[in-house]
Amino acid sequence: MKLYTSVGPNPNVVRVFLAEKGISVPIQKVDIMAGENRREPYISTVNPHGTCPALELDDGTHLSQITAICEYLEETHPSPPLIGPTPEQRAETRMWVRRIDLGICEPMGVAFRSSEGLQMFKDRIFTIPEAADALKNLALMLFSFTGFGAKINQPINADHQHVLTWFDRVAARPGTQK
Amino acid sequence: MKLYTSVGPNPNVVRVFLAEKGISVPIQKVDIMAGENRREPYISTVNPHGTCPALELDDGTHLSQITAICEYLEETHPSPPLIGPTPEQRAETRMWVRRIDLGICEPMGVAFRSSEGLQMFKDRIFTIPEAADALKNLALMLFSFTGFGAKINQPINADHQHVLTWFDRVAARPGTQK
Repeated sequence: MKLYTSVGPNPNVVRVFLAEKGISVPIQKVDIMAGENRREPYISTVNPHGTCPALELDDGTHLSQITAICEYLEETHPSPPLIGPTPEQRAETRMWVRRIDLGICEPMGVAFRSSEGLQMFKDRIFTIPEAADALKNLALMLFSFTGFGAKINQPINADHQHVLTWFDRVAARPGTQK
Repeated sequence: MKLYTSVGPNPNVVRVFLAEKGISVPIQKVDIMAGENRREPYISTVNPHGTCPALELDDGTHLSQITAICEYLEETHPSPPLIGPTPEQRAETRMWVRRIDLGICEPMGVAFRSSEGLQMFKDRIFTIPEAADALKNLALMLFSFTGFGAKINQPINADHQHVLTWFDRVAARPGTQK
């Protein structure tokens, strides 16, 4: 195996996953700031979708999409289990990964690429600058759900002071008063 | 097992998956139009997130999120394989599911809940009406990628007449001319 990696949160997920597994693979750094992932030879030989990271398998094929890569690593290197040792535990992990991904991570990513990251991304992928503020608000789902949790006897752990401070800060915003 | 199901594309994915597997489970219909999934007893006993479908396991726990449910069914009922019989084939399926889900299905869903579906959803989940048009445009990624494919010697299969017709129709829109 070989990992094509770069700056950014997606490659970092795979690097942390590999480290937690104790798997060491050759690394090839991709300069996404310079657009190396959006031109040849990367798009022909690694990933036609032009995203990073990508995992080269021993048969020469390439995987992209971090959840697919992590599932593959879990299947081929089951110990220690990070997704889960049983179908039931894996199902629970996948349920929560999807909730967090769709509710928080993806809206944050699209919003970044359409605002602060626009100059870098506008000629690379489909951006929607006029929706950036609204998409950033989607990250407020975390606020909504933790607020709901507090009402149904599932409050934020009192030891998690940063989360509590964040919650109070969001709760003080005009948009959350209505 | 028991499936809580309703109208809408997400429950349909699980129903089709079960049918393709040849698995028959008791069905409980949930009236999401009337908000049955957003109040007691559903949120306390089935899914605190209030989404449908949900799969009740034999130990009494409940799964939500369709990809987690389908992965669980694949693991517990491997034949016939729908995600894949090997780690490599499952990885490829998962990679494409994520590409299609993040690039097409989710933007369509959020856009629907923020426009035509707003009256039904505005008091249930976080909606962003001002971003609906932009999010609908994200479904145009399918157009962008198939157009890119045509340029790099990966054209749409000529047998797929409906896809070709759709592509030509999108290609004729003012927004795709620039």
